[in-house]
Order: sequence, then structure tokens, then C-alpha cells
Amino acid sequence: MARVSSLLSFSLTLLIFFHGYAAQQAQQGQQFPNECQLDQLNALEPSHVLKSEAGRIEVWDHHAPQLRCSGVSFARYIIESKGLYLPSFFNTAKLSFVAKGRGLMGKVIPGCAETFQDSSEFQPRGGEQFEGQGEEGQGQGQGERQRFRDMHQKVEHIRSGDTIATTPGVAQWFYNDGQQPLVIVSVFDLASHQNQLDRNPRPFYLAGNNPQGQVWLQGREQQPQKNIFNGFEPEVIAQALKINLQTAQKLQNQEDNRGNIVRVEGPFGVIRPPLRGQRPQEGDDDDEGRHGRHGNGLEETICSARSTDNLDDPSRTDVYKPQLGYISILNSYDLPILRFIRLSALRGSIRQNAMVLPQWNANANAILYVTDGEAQIQIVNDNGNRVFDGQVSQGQLIAIPQGFSVVKRATSNRFQWVEFKTNANAQINTLAGRTSVLRGLPLEVITNGFQISPEEARRVKFNTLETTLTHSSGQASYGRPRVAEA
Amino acid sequence: MARVSSLLSFSLTLLIFFHGYAAQQAQQGQQFPNECQLDQLNALEPSHVLKSEAGRIEVWDHHAPQLRCSGVSFARYIIESKGLYLPSFFNTAKLSFVAKGRGLMGKVIPGCAETFQDSSEFQPRGGEQFEGQGEEGQGQGQGERQRFRDMHQKVEHIRSGDTIATTPGVAQWFYNDGQQPLVIVSVFDLASHQNQLDRNPRPFYLAGNNPQGQVWLQGREQQPQKNIFNGFEPEVIAQALKINLQTAQKLQNQEDNRGNIVRVEGPFGVIRPPLRGQRPQEGDDDDEGRHGRHGNGLEETICSARSTDNLDDPSRTDVYKPQLGYISILNSYDLPILRFIRLSALRGSIRQNAMVLPQWNANANAILYVTDGEAQIQIVNDNGNRVFDGQVSQGQLIAIPQGFSVVKRATSNRFQWVEFKTNANAQINTLAGRTSVLRGLPLEVITNGFQISPEEARRVKFNTLETTLTHSSGQASYGRPRVAEA
Amino acid sequence: MARVSSLLSFSLTLLIFFHGYAAQQAQQGQQFPNECQLDQLNALEPSHVLKSEAGRIEVWDHHAPQLRCSGVSFARYIIESKGLYLPSFFNTAKLSFVAKGRGLMGKVIPGCAETFQDSSEFQPRGGEQFEGQGEEGQGQGQGERQRFRDMHQKVEHIRSGDTIATTPGVAQWFYNDGQQPLVIVSVFDLASHQNQLDRNPRPFYLAGNNPQGQVWLQGREQQPQKNIFNGFEPEVIAQALKINLQTAQKLQNQEDNRGNIVRVEGPFGVIRPPLRGQRPQEGDDDDEGRHGRHGNGLEETICSARSTDNLDDPSRTDVYKPQLGYISILNSYDLPILRFIRLSALRGSIRQNAMVLPQWNANANAILYVTDGEAQIQIVNDNGNRVFDGQVSQGQLIAIPQGFSVVKRATSNRFQWVEFKTNANAQINTLAGRTSVLRGLPLEVITNGFQISPEEARRVKFNTLETTLTHSSGQASYGRPRVAEA
Repeated sequence: MARVSSLLSFSLTLLIFFHGYAAQQAQQGQQFPNECQLDQLNALEPSHVLKSEAGRIEVWDHHAPQLRCSGVSFARYIIESKGLYLPSFFNTAKLSFVAKGRGLMGKVIPGCAETFQDSSEFQPRGGEQFEGQGEEGQGQGQGERQRFRDMHQKVEHIRSGDTIATTPGVAQWFYNDGQQPLVIVSVFDLASHQNQLDRNPRPFYLAGNNPQGQVWLQGREQQPQKNIFNGFEPEVIAQALKINLQTAQKLQNQEDNRGNIVRVEGPFGVIRPPLRGQRPQEGDDDDEGRHGRHGNGLEETICSARSTDNLDDPSRTDVYKPQLGYISILNSYDLPILRFIRLSALRGSIRQNAMVLPQWNANANAILYVTDGEAQIQIVNDNGNRVFDGQVSQGQLIAIPQGFSVVKRATSNRFQWVEFKTNANAQINTLAGRTSVLRGLPLEVITNGFQISPEEARRVKFNTLETTLTHSSGQASYGRPRVAEA
Repeated sequence: MARVSSLLSFSLTLLIFFHGYAAQQAQQGQQFPNECQLDQLNALEPSHVLKSEAGRIEVWDHHAPQLRCSGVSFARYIIESKGLYLPSFFNTAKLSFVAKGRGLMGKVIPGCAETFQDSSEFQPRGGEQFEGQGEEGQGQGQGERQRFRDMHQKVEHIRSGDTIATTPGVAQWFYNDGQQPLVIVSVFDLASHQNQLDRNPRPFYLAGNNPQGQVWLQGREQQPQKNIFNGFEPEVIAQALKINLQTAQKLQNQEDNRGNIVRVEGPFGVIRPPLRGQRPQEGDDDDEGRHGRHGNGLEETICSARSTDNLDDPSRTDVYKPQLGYISILNSYDLPILRFIRLSALRGSIRQNAMVLPQWNANANAILYVTDGEAQIQIVNDNGNRVFDGQVSQGQLIAIPQGFSVVKRATSNRFQWVEFKTNANAQINTLAGRTSVLRGLPLEVITNGFQISPEEARRVKFNTLETTLTHSSGQASYGRPRVAEA
Repeated sequence: MARVSSLLSFSLTLLIFFHGYAAQQAQQGQQFPNECQLDQLNALEPSHVLKSEAGRIEVWDHHAPQLRCSGVSFARYIIESKGLYLPSFFNTAKLSFVAKGRGLMGKVIPGCAETFQDSSEFQPRGGEQFEGQGEEGQGQGQGERQRFRDMHQKVEHIRSGDTIATTPGVAQWFYNDGQQPLVIVSVFDLASHQNQLDRNPRPFYLAGNNPQGQVWLQGREQQPQKNIFNGFEPEVIAQALKINLQTAQKLQNQEDNRGNIVRVEGPFGVIRPPLRGQRPQEGDDDDEGRHGRHGNGLEETICSARSTDNLDDPSRTDVYKPQLGYISILNSYDLPILRFIRLSALRGSIRQNAMVLPQWNANANAILYVTDGEAQIQIVNDNGNRVFDGQVSQGQLIAIPQGFSVVKRATSNRFQWVEFKTNANAQINTLAGRTSVLRGLPLEVITNGFQISPEEARRVKFNTLETTLTHSSGQASYGRPRVAEA
């Protein structure tokens, strides 16, 4: 009896315990969708790695409180030399940043023309494509073959610093034509109304596949992920594409286990524009390229709308202090398509012991990804608590929620990062500096608020003349007025 | 003892089972609002029928995963000849399509003038209204009665193919002045910010009622649904309308069990414009009617903003192939009010063995409703799985989530449908055809992605010259280039 | 044994009961985010009071079904004479109404210049600020001190009736320079996309603190809330502001228990414009003030964008009937910044026995706050049930959900209220009156819908000639045509 009742008692306790948890969760689920319980932030690393033939995709867990609260997911694409990231599209808007390397990028925008056509004006290729492969009974004039080569939509060169906006449902591919790995990081806006499904990132593969399945989705039984053609009957594909059944079956990639990044054997002869402004150090040339892209009237249609800008281009820097570093911002004034996808980006690069003055995002969450070096970061929440105080280093990510204040100090020779913001025109407020909130407050508010003397308040307001960057260990000029700097 | 403990054990098991379910649901509720677990789609039929005196309202269960994921609800209104759907309004924007029949429609837009006034210019009616009903003591000059008849807001003729946008909170009524049932299907956008309540459709009745209650709402005790006047004290109504208490009580419809579609006895003498462009086969006349509605400057105010367009009008078709069928699209470029309600529509009609080339919606969910005939449909999800492969027929509905690819083949003499899309400018990407994603990709991406020869890739890219419609059983032209068609 | 099993039985029953509740909640949490189970509304009073040195902040529980369904939170600020509400900002857009008193208000908009500079043109102040406080070793030329005083961003006079829009992340302060308490009520839009965190209001303090913690947050352990500086290391603050460590520590307000409204000792000498149009009864002067603010081209930049308008200004009233009262509406046509924050406001003031004709909000939820007097209110839901029928009086709040009809009758000498609406251009539909929905319907719809005679229908449509306000006890004119009134 005693044993039975103690067992029961234990079971009941357990039940009550779990039950209480369920009820609490349930109540919160109902009352606070996407609760931001952010009493502690962490530098995050990828939680899943999807390996492919010529590269890998590293996925951050979007259920992590920071990312869930920010309403985004995040991934890093490492594409080896001669690797081709096969075309796929997402249910969300996406903003990508090329962290390392160079390559080619293509998007297929529905209804737009194939404006890239083979001709002797662009790189002529060998006849490798049309060496007859013994295809059965598909009559094709030999003369026509010779004359006609290929036509496709725009292909762009991409390089380190490029920031690329992609709308939902638009297929995109990348090819690494350099010697080094091409590293691209992407943020996916799950919370935007442009994602009309639930808050999960869903890649749809046109070609390729993902043998490991969508491991980042919770509560869904995972199976290897196949391409779209795999889901149709081969007969349907054959009818739709007017091809034979055998080719239709090949499109399903069923025997293919290369993943979504495959190795290109031989030359990759897509039609591409000549390279220009490739090296960021040649500022003038680069700038010309940018303005060239700006300047033509074709930009007004969706087919020719610019969707890429380079944030490492020194000629477009927004804050520049040779001794300290630079900050470049890309918002919808620079790149109008961002108004549509409601994301923007900030690129920063600071030297050892430089500090980005404490600031907060007024109308956005920020997802900070470290591309080089390391920094000491402190983040403060609405309760006045330091919810992060630590080192972040290359390859790590940290989310800075709306309103939370942050200060960054480089602790390596150079600290470089990119911040993706969930607003097409994210606004920063600074706590210190020439354009800071303290500068905008009357002295009396400061003296009364902090119970300090007018003289102290005056120093608090006016001592720091920089707007964004300063020396983190400078002592020299305290109290002395100086000339204004950027 | 044994019995007791086994009973307890059973109870506990049951509890644990249920509890586990609750906890799982709770967790998902918190982490994934509106989870789209769409591993299998189904052709849906109405789950509830509300019967009225002169018709019925058939309601689809908006908790069905497909509809829940799409953020919409759906209903079908069958109004018999001489049936009047009494004015009601919703908490959501609504897009309706007249599937069968003809009738009259009126909306009351707040603040707009009663632009329809009785005069001999429009259909003169008999004096049926003012045959004294023995009203008590409400003096009214007989001469004035004769002189003054009625004035009200715009009344429009509607007919099969009409697509009607309605903003939240705007009362709307329908009257069937034809001989056949008037069938209207409507989609309600629950997920839009225009619905400021929860994700449930809520009709508010000005007149009429719903004796069965809001059976489609879960977790709410249902009682017969009454009209708005029923909720106020009769004294308040009398004071507000300056009528006697007896009339105020009549407005409450308390004894009325006719439902929301009532039979009109005798003539329905509302002021209406003369009929024009009524028969879709008379294309020219119809077109003139449309342009006439377009052309005047009054359209700029909300009171005269056009909210209706006809999708069966052959002169406005977007894709037209006499042997195969036609597709018409209605988006915010055609009907600016759609920009405001963020919905759009597509009307399709294809012949036996015609196929709509495989495609996906880039930025919208689609709700497909079959108005005539039947088709074989395949739908493929992000995992490359076929989540639907079956027949849909007249009166059925299927939701096609954002990004999911779909192919449709008519299996009856004529297959006709309407698709409501959750975006004012829904974009389609096609997998095959002259404007398809494959056409936009470089040959090298296709050869490397599918491991096929350049020659095969060329056929994959270029063999299908149509953009949207093709023969589903055609074999003839595989591999031969043809002239471009729509 | 019997005792044990009955105990167990009881426990199990309890468990099942609770469990059922949890499961139900869980399921709803997943399926219906933000479920509006509004079968009964209540007049709400504050649930938490945060006491400060010179005032208090009263917070409504935003988990109350009415507020949760409306997606807002609500607070009342009572600032005593000489009280300073220290600068803080929120994660949400905010719309505030000055219910009583007068004062000064400042906002600090990022990147905008300090356009208010000390000079003899504005109120000259005594030298109180620079009476040396024995500061240690911060050399500063005495001559410079004398010459230079202060510069800061715009400071505005505020007074009863002012309605103030504030965007997220923008710091704002208030000072009561009158003799009476300054009472401000604010609505916070939690459901808008501008709040990128969860559905909780979060104040971030620049100065001051909240020793009681964020008591309105559920499921979060509460601790005293400190200002932002408190969360950074003093060394970081010193480096960023280029001040000494001692001052940096003072900015953390750690020893400060005054709360967020502090008493200013001595004069509060901020630079301010001369008073104009302060007294609402001087209509002409006031109107001039308003137009003056409208008329200059500077308004086009965000720095000078107007964010305040007065709703008690008799010259701007939208509905005015001397015997009954007035209604003033503030929407984005009046104040363009409201388009951005998607909120609007209505101010009403009616005399004893006046009635606001029954109406519903087509596209918004309304949060009604009573500033003076009391009224009898009836509210009717979608089911035709009266979900509220009672008295609301000064200081109480009631939410009126989208589509719910409401009628208000003053039961005190004067009933005054403000309604905040969750739409930049909230539209009202009236059930009675010259612009009502009944007026817009054809007589035949009314006769058939309510089963009344044409003569009755005619009275229902045409008897009430007012649009908005009428006498709630008037009997006189029933059935007699009258001239149109506002």
C-alpha cells in the first residue's frame, strides 16, 4: 500500500510539475506570441551543418530566444572554389552579405527577359556544350546549333562586401570562380508579412537536394529533401517541358547525393559582364561602377532594379576616421528594393582599441555577425541589466533587440562585422557624442535626472565630439573642448 | 487493490498521454504561431451549412491546416431567386466572386452620399410602398409622401464572373433578381492587419440573424446570432432613430427565424442603373462598360472608387489560347482598392487535356475554388514531396501555400476555377515555358545541377514555347523549335 | 484505502480539470493567436501604481482580454507641480493625451540638431547653473562658461487637450510648470510592426529608475528597474562620454530611489519658446498658432515634423452643437506622423442627456478613456449581445473592439473622453442619422429585412437628421421632418 501510494504520489507530483509547466507555456503561448525573455544573450554559432559535394551550409537554430524574438533565421554558405550553389528560393525575403571570396550570382525574376545573350562581344567559349551526347531522336538542325548558343537572365559578379537583397520566391544561384572559398551569410525575415507561411525558413530546391533534411525544423518528421521536380510525376514533367521521359527523370535528381553545392567540372561558361571595380582599393573605378549602375532609366522596372551594393567600397563610407575605422550603412535610400523587403544593413570595421559609442536601435532588431577579428561587447536591456558582456569573434553572431543599448570595443587588430536590421531605415540613437540623446536634452534635465552639478552635466553633454567612433582607452582630452570630428 | 491501482494506472497513462499532447501543443503555440504542417493537402468541402428562408450559407472550417496556414476563411452564399442577403459586415477584408447567376449588390460606405435618387429617369415603380399600413399617429403630409420616394447609396448589377472587393466594417447586401440561384464565394483575410481582432471571421448582422449561431468558432459557447439592434435597449434605438418603441422592437428581429437570406415578396423596387454589358458573350459592349467605369474623375474619392471587375469578360483576358482556354488576372493595377485590402484574384478556364504549366506563387498563398468541371492537380512542397495528387471538382476548394509548385490538367470538358491570392500583386513563377525559371538559368547551371548533357539542357530550357497553357497530352513537337505562343 | 483512493480520485479530478483547461488553452494558443473572447467587457482601472518622488505612473494590465485583443497597453502619468518625468523611450509607438494641467515636453530625435540655443532673445535665466559646485580638477575657462550656456533639441509647451505622437525608441521627457498636477494618458501600440519585440510595453530609462520593477510583465522575475547607464561598466561610460569615473558612476543612479518622476528644486531654466495660444477659450489666437506651425517648409524633414495637436481647440472641432457638445478627430490628414505610427484619436465632450448616436469602428479598435464626468454606455458584439451596459466615469477606460457597436449617453453635467484608435484613419459607421448605414440602404432592404411597412422604414431611414450627436431624451420631433443639422 505504502509503495503504491508513494509511487502514485510521485507520479502525481511529476504530473503536476509538468502540468504546471504546460499550463504556463500554454498561457504564454496564447497571451504573448513570440515572448522575448532575453535576460541573457549569447554569442551564437551554427547548430546544424549541411554538407555538400563542394561546400557546406551552416544553419543557426532559429528557435534560439534571440533569433526567435528578432523574427529571423540565419545561415552561412561556404562554397568551395568551382562550387555551384544550385538555384533555390525561400518563402521569406533574404539579405545576404559576401564575407569572403568572389564569384558569380544569378537570380531569375519571373516575367523578365533573358537579357544576357551569347555573342562574340562577351567571353567566347569553346564548343564544349554541343558535342553530341547521343540523344535519341531529337532532331535539331546542326547549323542552328552552331549559330545559337545560350541566353539567360542577368549574371552579376559578386565579391567581398557585396550585400544582396532577394525577394521571396525568387530563385538564386552562386558560383565560386575564385581560388578561395566564397563565404556568404544570409538573414531570412520570418516575421515579415512577405513570409505568408509560418515562422520557419523553407528552402525550395529547383535542382540539387539536401540528404540530411530540414533538420532545423522542430516538430516535423524529417526526410531527405528533394528538388521540386522530384514531386511531380515524370510524365507531367515531360509534358510540361516537352522532353522525353528519360530526361524528365534525370531532372528529379533522385540518384544524386551531392547536396545543394556541387562541383563544376571544366569551365563554367555562363555569359557574364566584364569585370570592373573588382578591387575595393581602387576606389575611383569602383565608384564609377556604382554610379553607372545608378544612372540609367532602366532601373525603374523590376527586371533591372538594382539589388546589390558593396559595403566595403571606401568611397561610399558613411563614417570614416582613418585612425579608428569606418561604418557604412545600406538602407532603402541607397537601394530602393530594401523598402520592399524591409531590411537594411550596416558594415563596420574598427581598429584595436577603437570603440563604437553606446547606442540603441530605435525601430529594428539587429543581427550582428563577425566577419573578422574580435571585440568586447556589452549589451543592456530595458531593466538596466547587462545581458551580454563578452567577447565575440569571427564567425559568431549576436542579436541586439530593439531598444537594447550596445557598446563595442575592438580587441584584435581589426574587428569587422555586418549588422542586418529588421527595418528598411533602421534608426540609431547614441548615448554619447555630438548627435547623442544627451546632447539633445536640456542641462536641467541632466542635472535633475542624475543629481549632478551643472558643470558635470555640461561635461556629460559636450565632452565627446565624435558621433560614432572614439578611442576606447583615450584619456587625454577629458574636459577640454575640441574641434568636431566625424 | 489491484483493481484500484490498475484503474489509477490507466488514468495516469491517459493523463500523461493527453498531457504530453498539451505540452507539445503549448510549446508549438509559443514558438511557431500558425504552424504550417502541410505534409498532406486535401480538397475541402464546406463543414457547416447555415440555412435561411431563401438560400443558405456554406462555411469552410478555417481551422483546417490549409486555411489556417493561409490565414483566411472561406464561405459560399447560395441565394435563391428573389432571395435577399441582408446587409452585414465583417471584421476582415473580403474578396468575392460571383460563380453563378445574376443580381443586385449594394454597399454602404460611411460618409458617402445617397447618390441614387428616385426619379422618372430610372425605372419608375408602382406606389406599393406607401399604401398606408395603419401606423399609429406619425403625421406625415400626403403630398410630401407622393413627391418624395427614396434615396440610397450606389446599387450595382452583378453577374457571373464579377469579382468584388469589400473593406472591413462596410455593410453589403445582395439580391437575386434572376431565375437561377445566385452563387457567390468569398475569401476573408484573417491574417491581414485590417482584421484587428483575432483570426476568426465574424459577421455582424444589421438585419436578419443566424439561428444556428457561429458554429465555425471553436472554444466559444454558441447561441443564436442576432442582429446589432437586438443588443441595444429598444428605448435607445427609439431615441437614436426618433421612432416609436414598437418600431424599435421590430428592428430587433427577435421573432424572426428567416436567417440572413430572406425571400422578397412582390417587386424589389430599388433604384438601379440600366443594365449594360450584362451578357459576357457580347464582348464589345462589355468592354465599353468597363472603360466607362474607368474613365471619370470621380473615381478618385473613396465614395466612387470602383470595387468590382468582371473576370469572365473575354476582352480583358491576360492569357488566351482558343484551343486551350484563358487566364484572367485581377490585381491592384486593375482595381486599385486591392492595394488596400491586399488580395487579388485569378480566373482560369481550360479545356479537356489542357494543362496549366507547373508554377509557384512567389509572394502569396492561393485559395483555389472550382466553379465548373474537374481537374487533376499535383502540388509539391518544399521537401520535394507531392502533398496533393488528385481530382478536384466543382464546389471544392484547395489551398496552395506560398512557394508550393502546382500543375493543373483539365479532366472534364471544361475546367473553370477562381484563385484568390493573399497579395495585391501576387507573382507567379513557372517551372516550364518561355518565361520560366529554367529559361532564365544559364545552360551550365542546368547541366551541372541535373547532371545532364548540354543538349538535354537545351531542350529543357527551350522546348516549351508557351508561357502558361499547353496541351497535357501533346507529343508532337518535342525537340522541334516552334514559333512563340502566348 | 478508501481515504487514499478518494484522495487520489480528488487529485485526479483536479488534474483532469486543470489539464483540460491547459489543453484547451494550448490548442487555442496555437490556433488563435490573440483570441478575442469578449463576451463581457468591463470598465477598467489601473492595476499597478508606480510611485515616484513627484508623481506616480498608473499602469493598466495589458493582459486584460479587452486590451490584449486590442493589441495595446495603457498608462496614466500624474506629474505633480515641479515634477520632471525623466527621459525614457519605449519599444512601441505611443499616442498621449494631456488630460489635465500644463507643462513642458521635450523629445530627442536621433540625428536632429540642437535648435534651441540660449540667447537673450528667449527667457533669460539667472546664472544658477554655473555656481561652482566644487568640481575636482576639470579645468574650464571662466570666460567661456559665461559666454556659453546651453543648446538642446526642441522644447514645447503642452496643455490640456494636446495629443502627442511618439515613435519607438525616441526619448521623451515632461515637466510640470503649472500649479496643478499634469495628467497624461498614453496608449502603446503593441501589435504594430513597429514594436519588433513581443507584446509587452517596455520602458527604457535614460535617467531615473523604477524601484518596483516591471510589475506588469507576467512570467518574468521582477527586479528594480535601473537606467541604461547602470548596465554598462563605469569605465565604458567614462570612456564614451570622456568624463571621470566618479561622474560616470553618478550617471548610473544607483543610490537613487526617486523613481522616474523627480522634483525639481529651484527654477527649471530650459530654453523654451514664448507661450502662445495657451488658453483654449481664446480661439482666434490659438488657431493662428496652429496655422503658424503648419505653414513653414521646414515641416518636411523628420526633425521639424509636427507631432502635437490640440483636440480641445474649439476652432478645429469636427462636430459642434452648442446645446449638445462637440467631437474632434485627429487623424493622419491632420498630423502626418500618425500615418507612420498607425494610431489616431477622437476627443468628445457632451452635455447631460446628449447621446452619441450608435456607431461602430470599421477598421480599428478604440480605447476610450474618460477624462471628466460619466456616461451610460452600451456595447454590442457580433452575436448581437450587449457585452457592456453600464456607467463609466472619470479615470476609467473601456476598449471597444472593431465592429462592435456602441452608444454613449452623458449622465453627468458634462461627459468628456478621449478615444485612441488603432488606425491612422479610423472610420466610423453610424447606425442612425443622416450619414448612417440605414440611410444608405434602399427602403426595400429595410422593409424586407425588418419586416416593417414602407412607412415605418421611411421613418427609420429619415427621422434622425443629425449625424453624430442627438438628445437622448428628446421625444418632440419624431416623424416630423426637420432641417439638417451637424
